[in-house]
Amino acid sequence: MKIGFIGLGNMGAPMALNLLRAGHAVNVFDLSAQAVQTLVDEGAKAAGSPKAAVSDVECVVTMLPTAEHVKSVLTADDGILAGVAKGVVIIDSSTIDPASVTSFADLARLHGNTFIDAPVSGGTGGAAAGTLTFMVGGSDAIYEQVKPVLSTMGKNIVHCGDTGTGQIAKICNNLILGITMAGVAEAMSLGAALGIDAKVLSGIINTSTGRSWSSDTYNPFPGVIETAPSSRGYIGGFGADLMLKDLGIATEAAKFAKQPAYMGALAQQLYQAVSSRGDGKLDFSAVIRLYRQG
Amino acid sequence: MKIGFIGLGNMGAPMALNLLRAGHAVNVFDLSAQAVQTLVDEGAKAAGSPKAAVSDVECVVTMLPTAEHVKSVLTADDGILAGVAKGVVIIDSSTIDPASVTSFADLARLHGNTFIDAPVSGGTGGAAAGTLTFMVGGSDAIYEQVKPVLSTMGKNIVHCGDTGTGQIAKICNNLILGITMAGVAEAMSLGAALGIDAKVLSGIINTSTGRSWSSDTYNPFPGVIETAPSSRGYIGGFGADLMLKDLGIATEAAKFAKQPAYMGALAQQLYQAVSSRGDGKLDFSAVIRLYRQG
Amino acid sequence: MKIGFIGLGNMGAPMALNLLRAGHAVNVFDLSAQAVQTLVDEGAKAAGSPKAAVSDVECVVTMLPTAEHVKSVLTADDGILAGVAKGVVIIDSSTIDPASVTSFADLARLHGNTFIDAPVSGGTGGAAAGTLTFMVGGSDAIYEQVKPVLSTMGKNIVHCGDTGTGQIAKICNNLILGITMAGVAEAMSLGAALGIDAKVLSGIINTSTGRSWSSDTYNPFPGVIETAPSSRGYIGGFGADLMLKDLGIATEAAKFAKQPAYMGALAQQLYQAVSSRGDGKLDFSAVIRLYRQG
Amino acid sequence: MKIGFIGLGNMGAPMALNLLRAGHAVNVFDLSAQAVQTLVDEGAKAAGSPKAAVSDVECVVTMLPTAEHVKSVLTADDGILAGVAKGVVIIDSSTIDPASVTSFADLARLHGNTFIDAPVSGGTGGAAAGTLTFMVGGSDAIYEQVKPVLSTMGKNIVHCGDTGTGQIAKICNNLILGITMAGVAEAMSLGAALGIDAKVLSGIINTSTGRSWSSDTYNPFPGVIETAPSSRGYIGGFGADLMLKDLGIATEAAKFAKQPAYMGALAQQLYQAVSSRGDGKLDFSAVIRLYRQG
Repeated sequence: MKIGFIGLGNMGAPMALNLLRAGHAVNVFDLSAQAVQTLVDEGAKAAGSPKAAVSDVECVVTMLPTAEHVKSVLTADDGILAGVAKGVVIIDSSTIDPASVTSFADLARLHGNTFIDAPVSGGTGGAAAGTLTFMVGGSDAIYEQVKPVLSTMGKNIVHCGDTGTGQIAKICNNLILGITMAGVAEAMSLGAALGIDAKVLSGIINTSTGRSWSSDTYNPFPGVIETAPSSRGYIGGFGADLMLKDLGIATEAAKFAKQPAYMGALAQQLYQAVSSRGDGKLDFSAVIRLYRQG
Repeated sequence: MKIGFIGLGNMGAPMALNLLRAGHAVNVFDLSAQAVQTLVDEGAKAAGSPKAAVSDVECVVTMLPTAEHVKSVLTADDGILAGVAKGVVIIDSSTIDPASVTSFADLARLHGNTFIDAPVSGGTGGAAAGTLTFMVGGSDAIYEQVKPVLSTMGKNIVHCGDTGTGQIAKICNNLILGITMAGVAEAMSLGAALGIDAKVLSGIINTSTGRSWSSDTYNPFPGVIETAPSSRGYIGGFGADLMLKDLGIATEAAKFAKQPAYMGALAQQLYQAVSSRGDGKLDFSAVIRLYRQG
Repeated sequence: MKIGFIGLGNMGAPMALNLLRAGHAVNVFDLSAQAVQTLVDEGAKAAGSPKAAVSDVECVVTMLPTAEHVKSVLTADDGILAGVAKGVVIIDSSTIDPASVTSFADLARLHGNTFIDAPVSGGTGGAAAGTLTFMVGGSDAIYEQVKPVLSTMGKNIVHCGDTGTGQIAKICNNLILGITMAGVAEAMSLGAALGIDAKVLSGIINTSTGRSWSSDTYNPFPGVIETAPSSRGYIGGFGADLMLKDLGIATEAAKFAKQPAYMGALAQQLYQAVSSRGDGKLDFSAVIRLYRQG
Repeated sequence: MKIGFIGLGNMGAPMALNLLRAGHAVNVFDLSAQAVQTLVDEGAKAAGSPKAAVSDVECVVTMLPTAEHVKSVLTADDGILAGVAKGVVIIDSSTIDPASVTSFADLARLHGNTFIDAPVSGGTGGAAAGTLTFMVGGSDAIYEQVKPVLSTMGKNIVHCGDTGTGQIAKICNNLILGITMAGVAEAMSLGAALGIDAKVLSGIINTSTGRSWSSDTYNPFPGVIETAPSSRGYIGGFGADLMLKDLGIATEAAKFAKQPAYMGALAQQLYQAVSSRGDGKLDFSAVIRLYRQG
């Protein structure tokens, strides 16, 4: 299949590479010439604009930092909608707010295209290995149509419901993740300060009602889980600034839905404090540094 | 073995019953004559005071609502320390603050006894079935000594470290539990308000980084998990007032340790709001009612 | 002076009227024909677009709900910048985020105009009476230039510093206001629940270190201050939804500045809860209803 | 009048001194021999126990750190109730929780005495100058009876209502104070980070709806108010640890009253964070250091 791919960052580049490896013809666009060249070296075709990248394709994939980038890439004079053929599906794998998805889907419909949300989880490791989870928002028919393409980049292709529900699933998951991680950090620090051994404590929690991915797989206390970022100085992983961004989307969505988000809003401020300390590039489990040294 | 058991409430009564069934001779004391009679009917011997209940025993177990009750039962003129033989171990399975454990252990030591903390998880169901988890704080030798007795009441007898660490483990676990449940309630409500199906959403969360016991086993959204209190009007389970009590102990311990407990303090207020609405007897997952109707 | 006025809502309409009464010639534009007609009846000249409203004026005033409205009115094909003469100052009295002010000022500069921020406090009463406070962000020279115009609509014309500082002052003030009001509501409710008379309590607070405008002038407890919205069912005043909007701007600005806003973020969620109860149109002091009946 | 005075700390010592200077005969007791000697040098009579200090007096005043101290001083074998004559009024000026006041008043009544709460505001400066405010909880008759004594130590003797209402007034005031100070710190830091001059900002706030004692008299931003602790490195004033204690009493009282205390609980954690940084002895306005350097 011929695919246009816009956005070759830490996530987008390995995703596009997996499309190439699966035998698809891929036109790529990114503001970074270097990012484009790396993909061209692997067989992609460079395009001078989003419009050029999608003028002859059967499917478009976008992977961008914010809703503003998506809007610009869609609607600019040299943007996707200015060049893409009617009927082509635009799959947006960026993490953005559900309300923007709705407005972009409306815009695309006016041009005779379908815009769907398919944000991912799994991080840069999952993107490289082709094991991402895609959370897809769109009709049953469109879901069946895009599933083969997404399957070359991910392992689990989950249908969440109509357009926008992919983003809703993503931000609700990350809202819980941000809250739970802060809670685990708070409790592990408290336990250690009160005198219990951190490994013993996590062992009890992980077999009890307090268990969670934040505790049993990604524990923020150094030394508890050897493979977690906490055991290597919080380098790598999912950056605190990215968690801050996702919590920002979640609390904005809550404002839009007139739902209070007490815990999420407080967690957001904690990651904000991490960022203001200059630790925003560290893994988000570094939120534990608000509670203890080290 | 001859055992003195003080406190025959919802938890204590079935625990004492399991001791009887295992063949131990059990002296019981409780302020409720009815609670005592029920155990006597099963073969226990009624005592007129804590002192009387422990005067001829090899082991004492207490299961009481608060640290003040434990103090009174220990130190009153007709209390445990006034009647128990030197060398007997006092096992306290109440959930109380770690600082009180230290002071009670000091008092017991002056009388030639050992006081250890062994709070439980598993609820009234686990108490009846004899499948409780005991979190034991005490020396290795004492742990080995009490393990057989506790094994007749529970399935997992976990050694947490020195005296007090059993309570530390318990409150740190419940601190996480209270926070995570509030977070899951917030995110499930937000997702539903934004338009995703609650079962689909929980399915995604439970296979992703947001997973936790609060989501995959005890989801607060009605209808998601048929066996959870949320699917039967929040009747039964672990009461919001009990969660409020445990979060109160956790934040008090944090104050004592000069550790901030941002998330725990906010969660505490949310369960407080549940209680002030008159829902304190409902399962603690009813915290979701702060976010949505129903 | 000939002035173009865009935005004739609850605040804009009486402000434009005061300009007319002071003898200025005023071109007005609003999407509501009725709002325009009311001003025309008082001597204003109706314009069919922002562009038309400003094509022959010496000064422009905008009073709009959000930054998106300001952007649209500025940059649309029939917007202000398409019609205004070079050198004319555009005074924006909307409450918007400081970052938007900067971008609008940049845009205006490209067209040879100066865009300044001059948000107000004083509410619809102050707008009608011409007693508003204007918080002006701009150079000394521009401040001196606009002061006479603003003085026909307000009593205090405060120079806050360079462009953007007017909005910064406004949102920092309202950030404190939202927090303090929630705090006063919480403490007054607590005191009443514990058994002290609300008037006695407020009398003590108002002569002590707890005093604030939220307590001594606008107390949220019913019956304490006869002239406050709390004594008339929270009708009128400054709506909870407007406070929610301003706290949203403040916490967004904090995110931008990488500053934690713990208290503001929590207060925002409380007003969100007020809004989700259906009380968003009530005065913001109705936040006390989260704490007590009545 | 002959008065027994228990507790000669930073507040109690100057208060007792003012009683002496007003011509009263004062028996004093404190665990610190040095504190006692200082008062003896001024004409007081040293006593070896609370019981001895009150055995021949017409009035008792206590000024102690916590409710536990008050309980001990009242009920110990050599305590006040063991020595005081029937009918003598015991005035407690400590800051403690209202529930303890009730229990102490009940105890005193059994001994034929009246125990009333009369906590103070005004700090060590007010204690030395005799300008304290006393918040008195007790019947009209008792209030009239104690007013002359209190007037030799304070300027404003406020009758708050029945027993306990003095403490309620005190903690509700300090609850607001702790919240408002944190809010002002947050907003001043945000404003400065966004680029407005701190003095200009505070000037606007202090003449607007954001005004409060925390802003116009005790502003936490360095250099804004020359006489505030913030302008001398936060030395002196009202310690963060004391604010933490008072917020702890307030949130405990809220738990007792089944009232949520969202803002107070969060503020409490912020002062906890100040304390855990090692800044607990600094003035409580040092909470601003959680938001900015300096």
